[in-house]
Order: sequence, then structure tokens, then C-alpha cells
Amino acid sequence: MKKVGIILGSDSDLPVAKKAVDVLRQFGIDFEIHIYSAHRTPEKAKEYAANARKNGIGVIIGMAGMAAHLAGALAANTTVPVIGVPCASGAFQGWDSLLSTVQMPTGIPVATVAVNGGANAALLAAQILSLSDEGIAEKLDCKRASDSEKVLEKDRDLDISTL
Amino acid sequence: MKKVGIILGSDSDLPVAKKAVDVLRQFGIDFEIHIYSAHRTPEKAKEYAANARKNGIGVIIGMAGMAAHLAGALAANTTVPVIGVPCASGAFQGWDSLLSTVQMPTGIPVATVAVNGGANAALLAAQILSLSDEGIAEKLDCKRASDSEKVLEKDRDLDISTL
Amino acid sequence: MKKVGIILGSDSDLPVAKKAVDVLRQFGIDFEIHIYSAHRTPEKAKEYAANARKNGIGVIIGMAGMAAHLAGALAANTTVPVIGVPCASGAFQGWDSLLSTVQMPTGIPVATVAVNGGANAALLAAQILSLSDEGIAEKLDCKRASDSEKVLEKDRDLDISTL
Amino acid sequence: MKKVGIILGSDSDLPVAKKAVDVLRQFGIDFEIHIYSAHRTPEKAKEYAANARKNGIGVIIGMAGMAAHLAGALAANTTVPVIGVPCASGAFQGWDSLLSTVQMPTGIPVATVAVNGGANAALLAAQILSLSDEGIAEKLDCKRASDSEKVLEKDRDLDISTL
Amino acid sequence: MKKVGIILGSDSDLPVAKKAVDVLRQFGIDFEIHIYSAHRTPEKAKEYAANARKNGIGVIIGMAGMAAHLAGALAANTTVPVIGVPCASGAFQGWDSLLSTVQMPTGIPVATVAVNGGANAALLAAQILSLSDEGIAEKLDCKRASDSEKVLEKDRDLDISTL
Amino acid sequence: MKKVGIILGSDSDLPVAKKAVDVLRQFGIDFEIHIYSAHRTPEKAKEYAANARKNGIGVIIGMAGMAAHLAGALAANTTVPVIGVPCASGAFQGWDSLLSTVQMPTGIPVATVAVNGGANAALLAAQILSLSDEGIAEKLDCKRASDSEKVLEKDRDLDISTL
Amino acid sequence: MKKVGIILGSDSDLPVAKKAVDVLRQFGIDFEIHIYSAHRTPEKAKEYAANARKNGIGVIIGMAGMAAHLAGALAANTTVPVIGVPCASGAFQGWDSLLSTVQMPTGIPVATVAVNGGANAALLAAQILSLSDEGIAEKLDCKRASDSEKVLEKDRDLDISTL
Amino acid sequence: MKKVGIILGSDSDLPVAKKAVDVLRQFGIDFEIHIYSAHRTPEKAKEYAANARKNGIGVIIGMAGMAAHLAGALAANTTVPVIGVPCASGAFQGWDSLLSTVQMPTGIPVATVAVNGGANAALLAAQILSLSDEGIAEKLDCKRASDSEKVLEKDRDLDISTL
Repeated sequence: MKKVGIILGSDSDLPVAKKAVDVLRQFGIDFEIHIYSAHRTPEKAKEYAANARKNGIGVIIGMAGMAAHLAGALAANTTVPVIGVPCASGAFQGWDSLLSTVQMPTGIPVATVAVNGGANAALLAAQILSLSDEGIAEKLDCKRASDSEKVLEKDRDLDISTL
Repeated sequence: MKKVGIILGSDSDLPVAKKAVDVLRQFGIDFEIHIYSAHRTPEKAKEYAANARKNGIGVIIGMAGMAAHLAGALAANTTVPVIGVPCASGAFQGWDSLLSTVQMPTGIPVATVAVNGGANAALLAAQILSLSDEGIAEKLDCKRASDSEKVLEKDRDLDISTL
Repeated sequence: MKKVGIILGSDSDLPVAKKAVDVLRQFGIDFEIHIYSAHRTPEKAKEYAANARKNGIGVIIGMAGMAAHLAGALAANTTVPVIGVPCASGAFQGWDSLLSTVQMPTGIPVATVAVNGGANAALLAAQILSLSDEGIAEKLDCKRASDSEKVLEKDRDLDISTL
Repeated sequence: MKKVGIILGSDSDLPVAKKAVDVLRQFGIDFEIHIYSAHRTPEKAKEYAANARKNGIGVIIGMAGMAAHLAGALAANTTVPVIGVPCASGAFQGWDSLLSTVQMPTGIPVATVAVNGGANAALLAAQILSLSDEGIAEKLDCKRASDSEKVLEKDRDLDISTL
Repeated sequence: MKKVGIILGSDSDLPVAKKAVDVLRQFGIDFEIHIYSAHRTPEKAKEYAANARKNGIGVIIGMAGMAAHLAGALAANTTVPVIGVPCASGAFQGWDSLLSTVQMPTGIPVATVAVNGGANAALLAAQILSLSDEGIAEKLDCKRASDSEKVLEKDRDLDISTL
Repeated sequence: MKKVGIILGSDSDLPVAKKAVDVLRQFGIDFEIHIYSAHRTPEKAKEYAANARKNGIGVIIGMAGMAAHLAGALAANTTVPVIGVPCASGAFQGWDSLLSTVQMPTGIPVATVAVNGGANAALLAAQILSLSDEGIAEKLDCKRASDSEKVLEKDRDLDISTL
Repeated sequence: MKKVGIILGSDSDLPVAKKAVDVLRQFGIDFEIHIYSAHRTPEKAKEYAANARKNGIGVIIGMAGMAAHLAGALAANTTVPVIGVPCASGAFQGWDSLLSTVQMPTGIPVATVAVNGGANAALLAAQILSLSDEGIAEKLDCKRASDSEKVLEKDRDLDISTL
Repeated sequence: MKKVGIILGSDSDLPVAKKAVDVLRQFGIDFEIHIYSAHRTPEKAKEYAANARKNGIGVIIGMAGMAAHLAGALAANTTVPVIGVPCASGAFQGWDSLLSTVQMPTGIPVATVAVNGGANAALLAAQILSLSDEGIAEKLDCKRASDSEKVLEKDRDLDISTL
């Protein structure tokens, strides 16, 4: 099975990465995680992306804040799908990282999820891998059913008299 | 091979869809295209998504403007990856559709590309399908090389004296 | 008398719902409240809206944060008036939920109030119901008079020497 | 049957009002229309709102651009529901009028629709009036069905080979 | 000497008003202060403005948050200069109140200062009154000199070795 | 009578200045107009402001676009009231000039009007001068009445059948 | 003398580059210009930057639109000063490129100028080179004087009667 | 060797200045630091800039918040390169200071870095000075290598089992 590669621009993004890791573990999806800055270690980031496909990486998740070039820089060096997670750091709390991640020029797409959306990045990776892995597809269905059940449970437990 | 399903919220989004269609044809990827509004034909949109996996759809691309719920509404009804293309219409020229598409709650990711990014949506779909289709992977490499060559050609042709 | 249906996209929106509940109780307006996510339980949300008119619901209030599709998804399935309350959650503190709620396409209006405006949503519901309920109309006049009186009282109590 | 009162802050908003008028005529809903500026004729705006209920006005629609105080000024003088339509004029193209219309303080709600959303304002008015008028409720259902059919027709007519 | 009238939309704006009061006291300028909401007590706000000139009010300062109509509503009922102070309250922290205050339509200006700029509103009022009051003009010169001196003092006291 | 000094940051702002000039001529208020850039001719701008009071200038109007420092730079060198008109130029169409003009630090207020609000700047100047000039006060009342009458006339002329 | 290297992310940025070229020619500063995309030709961009210092490049100017990573990608590979020019392209007209260019993480600065500010980028480059080139310093003084004189000339030529 | 001049608009910006000071000390670059407000001490700011070149200042760093005119005001009075650091203060947390600093008109560039980017301002100054100082160029290379090594170290130390 193909692996997911999580790349963080900085160790300050680890709490967001943790959310992705939890989901991937829940799905039994193999992953690796690295801290490679697009600006401070551009060569490492480039090499990781350039070798991703032949190293069995099926999806790369890039997480970064501020002028978040990381996901785009990874995407520029691979044709494996790259998911971008804009992180909320600095004065603009994600407006800068969202626009830097999603507004990619024609030719180099980045699959952008919500600001700080580590869990959704991992779920999207699972969805992508599910296309050739029936087991993940089933787990996705289960999780959807369970998420749905949790909402319904909260709805049933909602006691109007306590409001 | 799995197909790509392009869903438009309105026929006013056809110029953006055209950019996706051109790329998919260039890659020889099978696709279908429908106009299903998340708000005016919610049942149709839901059914399309709910049956996507069993109908051989590998990736869904949802395109909509303003309060662009379409991609999210599709994603809520399938675990096939859904790509969202925010379209620039109305007074806010894409700010509303970008936020409505990308800021999805935990559990239901939408792989968002740039505003009006029809071509990149198709390329991202191709990248996703390339994980289990060596042919598409090769075509992606070719396109990258050719895109790169076009830039280099423009660079070589740049005549400083004409500026 | 027609009832008000309050639908929350998540139990994290309960503090905003509480503000609506307080107003409805003050006006003696019958209401029910449910947690139905537009994305995690789309079928439930749809059914609730689709059956609202025949179930005696006069106004639906939908509350959600981030890419807040809930009010729009409810509105797409009923012609009963739907009031949308954008909730401030996540990195963008209501910019995303406001635009996702208010910028609805032609054909499916959502009556949007201020971010976190639970009380005003309930007041708007009361105003709508007052068109065929003289009692509510009178209570609205009373509340206006009392709100006004409270401002005047604060004005009278304002002791310039303590500033 | 109760009437709809459309109030425009300026005659430059007439194209947006026209969209509301078309819908109201289509529904056979009685309406009146006035140009009363919240700032240049505040007394007229106030009087219109203050007398709305006793004059048989069921819903007021206020349309204005820039620092759009009109809908709020009307709402401050009546407990009849007031729908606000932010108009896109001046340098900020609706950002100012949206925020000025929707961010009303607790106690005085304005039911805000999309920027330039004249048609949706009228539809919302029809939905409100439908609570005590079965005929309008039926027409709303018809319009929904017809809107839906138009989308499906466009979907059927979509000729992939012409793209 | 003409007085300054400070009008607050809500008692939650008192901390901003306090900054204005401190400046006016420092300049020995007579003032009065009222809490009159543009929406909850529109008649009071209107009357205050309409009678301002004949009551010896030279400048009105209106302070409000969110959809801040107060300064505009005052300005619509007087030709005495009205200064608007947008207050930062609610989810948007002043973006809404700034636009609602400053983007007034042609014919009814509001002299807008910075968000929460209570002190500058009072200084601007003093500048306006200084045109016919030599004493205030001199105090303004003194305050400028003293403000300038404070900066220079901080500059002189800046000890590079403690950084 | 005191004069109004209009200072433009660039001759590209002349259309906005023209709107101010028209109002001042209508009121018979003496004015002078200069093009002094805060950045390209800082000394000229400074001198103009520094000598304004003794040269009989009662109000200065500063107009500039982009990083619009002009009104603030004038205000820093005089205690005569300075009105700022943010002009919409460049990519951001007034967002930059509005914030650069209105968000002045404590001590140096700028009375900011709407983006491109040349006419309102002149009206505000007239209001300020009216405090010591009964004639201007009367003309302001006349203009208000006439503006109001124009709205009412448009209201009377509104022919619903032509919509 | 050190040269200026102008790098464009796309040939659509040539009109902005032209403004820089005109200034550099006016100052007699040697320059070269290339089209190297951060995403389509990342290796070329990297190599250019990595070799800049030893190739006699004193300043690099990077120009790009949308998710404008180019200047940051150049800066990551050199310690020669990099000036970033955000270009206004796509739906967001420079908001995305400004934030992507200026909000660089600690360690890798980009000297950002205004959106589309090609001329100022070249002037900034000249100012940087002037530190070790007296001739450029003199030309900068001349240009300042001439710019200033042009403003004063426009001021002198301003004929109030033609307004 | 040329010195760096750090100018703060207010002593509230000292924490941002501290970040610049630390970097300059690390590089052994001579600097001086002053608190000169563009608005409260315009003459001081002007004089500092006007005499910078002849006083051996190679780069000026201007730091200010809100309507941050300081860097622009310095730049208007010198042709030495001026770096602008927008500080996040007040309600808008840097949006105002960023636009006020970066959107300078043609002729007077300010080299703008990220909001609160004191360290990057100093690094940019070092890069500029490195053009004529081999020692600084070497230190910049060392710092890059060390920054890069720190990222790689964090990557090596990342223990997936602790996540």
C-alpha cells in the first residue's frame, strides 16, 4: 500500500500534524513525517517530492503558515497529489497561508483544505488511496457512519430543559 | 479506468469547466459533466455523489460561485475524493466561494484549488488517478516537462531590446 | 401557533442557540431544537426542512460555523423562511460563515443575521410569526419599549463625575 | 393580503429593485415602492416604517449601498420583518453595505440577503407571507419545481461535444 | 463657548468615551454625554442632533460598534460637524463599524477617526472649536509640544544596552 | 472668513478634488488648491500645514491614494482640522488609502470621509466653518432641504409601471 | 558594477517588468532579465539565485502573481538581497501575491514593494547599489529633485478656473 | 563599515526592535536606535533620514503600527534604502500597518518585510551591507547553514511515537 508523507514547514505546526497522524493511524495507513522548510531547507523539500513516487508515497501533505510556499514547492517537484494545510500563525491567522497555498498557478495544483485542517488532510489522503484500496474505502464508510451517529447521539441527548 | 465527474452549480460556470475538459481530453481521461445545483436540485447532486463510487467515478470536481456549497454537498454524500473549484461571480469575485468551499468542517474534506482553477482541478484529478494508472503518471511527467520547456522557450525568446 | 425549529450544525454552537432559546421562551413561542449537520447528517437536515411546513414549523433557524452550508441546505428543501446565524469558529472568526450563509444564489434565500446573532434570529422569527399572531406583535412592541427604556435608564444613570 | 414595501436609499438602486418587483409580480403579491434615504429623508423613512403594520405592510425590503443604514433604520421603527439588500456601489463593491446591513446589534434584526440580491429579497418576502397564505405557498412550490426543472433541462441540453 | 456632545450607542462603549472625556477635561472644553442608540432609541438620537446647534453644541461625537449607524444617524439630523468613532466589538473587531461609519453617502459626511479612537475624536473636536477660540488653539500647540517632548524623552532614555 | 486649503498628493486625484471644489463654490467658501506630495515634496506639504493657521486657513483637505500619508503628514504639522479623503487608485481600490488615512495614532487625528468622497469633505469643511459663520449654517440647511426635496421628487416621479 | 537580475514568474508580468527596466536604463545600471517560474522551472530559479553572488548580481527582483512564491524561492537560495514585486493577476488582484511575497518566515527576508510596483523595485535596487557607487547615489538625488520639481510644476500649472 | 539606523514610531514597538537588535549584534553590525514618531516628531524623523547617508548610515529600518507612515516618511527624505516593518497594534493587527508601509507611490520605495518581522528586517539590512562587506556575506552563509541544520536536527529528533 502506498504511504502518506507529511511534511511540516516548522515544528510549530506539530499540533496540526498530530490531527493528521491520529486519522492515519485510525485508518491503518502507513505514513512518514518530516520537518523540511521550503525556505530553510529547500533542497530537502525538493528531493523528498522528486523521489516521492518511486519511494511509494501516494499522497504528500504539506503544512505551513504565513507565506506558506511549502505545499506548492513540493507540488512543483512531483506529480503525486499534494494536499496543502494552511496553518494559522503570525498576525494574519491563516489569511496569508490560505492564499499562499490555494492560489497556485495553472499547471501545479495543490489540494487545499481548511486552515489548521490536519484531520481533513488525512481523510482526503485516505479518500485518494481508497480508489485502489477497498479496505480504506470501507473504513471511510464506517467513519462516516460513526461521525453521523455521533451527531445523532448528541441530538438525542440534547436536553432542552438544560438550556 | 475510473472516470472524472464534473458537476457545475450553474451553466454560468461553463467557461471554467471548459478548462477542466480540455485537460482531461489532453490526458485521455474519461469524464462526464452535469449541471446539478446544490440548492435548486439538491436531490440530484446528492444522488450523483452517493452513487459515484459504484458508478466508476474516481474523482468528482464541483464548481460553484458565491455561497458555493456544491463541492461540500457532494463530499457529504460520498467518500470518493471531491475537488472544489470556487468560481468568481457576483460582487465578491471569489472571496465568498473560496471560503465556502475550503473551510469545510472536520470529517468532510474538499480538495480546493484556486478561484476559477478549472485546469488545475483536472490536473489534480489526473494526479489522483495516476496512483493506479502508470499511463497517466507518464503523461503528467510529459506535461510537466512540456510546461517547463514552454517557460524556458519564452525565456530564450525574451528580447531585452524590445522592452 | 406555528413553531420555530432551531437546527445547529454542531453542539459547539449551543451558546449561540441559547441566546435564541431565551428570546423564544420570553415570547412564549413554541420551538424545537436539533443538532443536524449539513455535512455529517445531510439526510436528517434535508428531511427536517422538507417536512417543516407540514409539521407546523413556521420559521427555521440554522446555525453553523466555517463553511456554513446548513442554513442554505435547509432552505434548499423548504419554502418556509430560513434564518441563518453565522457562528464565529475557526481561524476566520465568522468571515467564512457569514459569506457562506448570506451569499446564496438566486432562488434560495437565507435571512441572515449578525455573526453569533442568536437573539436577533429569534426576534426575527417572532417578527415573522407576528404577522398572523397579534399577541406576538404586542410582545414585540413591549420588548422594544422595554429595550428603549433600558437605554434611557442607562443614560439617566450615567454619572459624568465617575468617568 | 399584506403588502410588501420596497424602500430604496437612492434611485441608483433601481436595477436591484427591479429584480424584486419582477418576482413579486410573478407571485401576484401587492407591493409599493419608495425612494426614502435614511440620511437625506430620515423622517420619511421613519414614518414609513412606524406606520407599516397598521398600513397593511407585511414585509419591508430596504435596499442601500455603502454605509447602508436604511434597512436598520427601518427596522428600528417597526416590528414588521425588514429584509435588507446590500447594494454594490462605490469603491468597496458591497463589503461596506453587507456589513452595515447584517451586523445589527441585539434587539433590531435585519434579514439580510446577498449583495444585489433583489430577487431573493422578494422570494424571502413571499416565504414570510406564505405562512398565512396558502396560495403563495403553492406558488413557491411551483417556482421551486420550475427552477429545478430549468437546471435539469440545462443539464440534459449540455452537449459535451460542443465544449 | 460651544460644547461637545458625546453620544454612545451602548454603555459598552464607555471605555472609549472615557478617552475622549479625559482629553476634553484636559482642554477645559465643556461637554455632555449621553447613551442614545440609533436603533433602540432612534427618536432620542434624532432629537439630540436636530437641536444640537440651537443648544450650543459645536461638535457631536458618535461612538458605536458593529453596524455602527449612530454617527450617520446623528449627522442626518444636524449640520453641526459629527465625528464618528468606530468601536471594536463583536466578531469583526471594528471592520464593520469602520465601514458603517466612514462610507457615508454624498450629502451627509461623518468625520471618522481610528477604531476605538476616543482621544483623537476629542482632539479633533478641540481643533474644530479652536477656529474661533484662541485659548484652545494655544492649548493644542502646548499639547503637541508636550507630546513631542515625551517622544524625545523616551528617545533620550532609550538605553541600548538593556535591549 | 477662513479659507479651505485643498492639497492633492497627485494630479491623478483631480477628479475627486473637483467634487470638493464644486461644493465650496456652491457655498461661496474661499479656497485654494495645491498639489503637494507627502513623499515627493514633503517640505512643501509640511510648510503649507505649519503656516495654515496664520495664513487664514480654517480647514485643510488632504486627498491621496495607496499608502495615503498626505492627510496625516499635514495633520502632524498643524492643529487646524485636517480632513482626509482616501482615493481609490492602484490594485486595492481604496482599502489601502482608507486604512492609511483613518488609522492615525493618538495625538494626530484626521477627519476621514468615504473613499473618493470629495463632496463630503467639502461639506464637512463647510460644517466646521459654519460654527462661526451663520451664513454657511443657513446654506447648509438649504442644501439639506434641497437634497431632501430631490429624493422626495424622485420618489414622487417613480412610476411603478415602467419598472 | 554589480548587476540587477530581474526574474519573472510568467511572461504575463512583462508590463510590470518594463517599468523596472525603464528605471534601470535611466540609471545606467546593468541588468539581465529571465522568465523562470518557481513552480514550472524550480531548478532554474534555484540555480539562478544560488549563483547570483558569484555571477556579479547585486540585487535580484522577483515578480509574480497569485500564490507568488518566486521571490521567496529565490531568497531561499541566496543571501543577495531579493526584492519582491507582487503582481495583480487572477480574481484577487494582488491580495494573494502581496501576502505570499511579504509574509516570509524568519530567516529568509524578501524586500517587498507595492503591488505592480516595478518602478519602485528598480529604484530600491538602485538605492541598494548606491551604497558602494557614488554615481548612482548622485543620480538618485537628481531623480528625487526632478520628481519633486515635476510635482511643483503641476502645482504651478494648476489653473483653478478650469476645474 | 556603514551603520544601520533603527527608528521606532513608538516605544510600544520595542519588542519588535529587540528582534532586529539581536540579529545585528549576532552579525557584529553597528547600529543606532531612536524613537522618532512620523507624526509627533516629524522634524526629527526627517532630519535623521536627510542626514543618514552623510552620517554613515547604510540602511534605515522604520517600525510602526496602525497608519504606519514612518518608513515612508523616512524614505521620502533619503535615498539610502529604507526597510519598513509593519507592527501589529490596534484593532486591525497589522492589516493597516502593512498596507500603509508597502503600498508606497512610484518614486519612494520602502522595502517591506512581514508584520512584526524585526529579525528579517535586520537580516535584509545585513544582506544589503554584504554587497560591499565580504565578512557579512560569510556570516550570512553561516547563518543560513546553521538555520538549515536546526531544521534538519528537528527533523532527525522528531519521534513519531510521541505524537
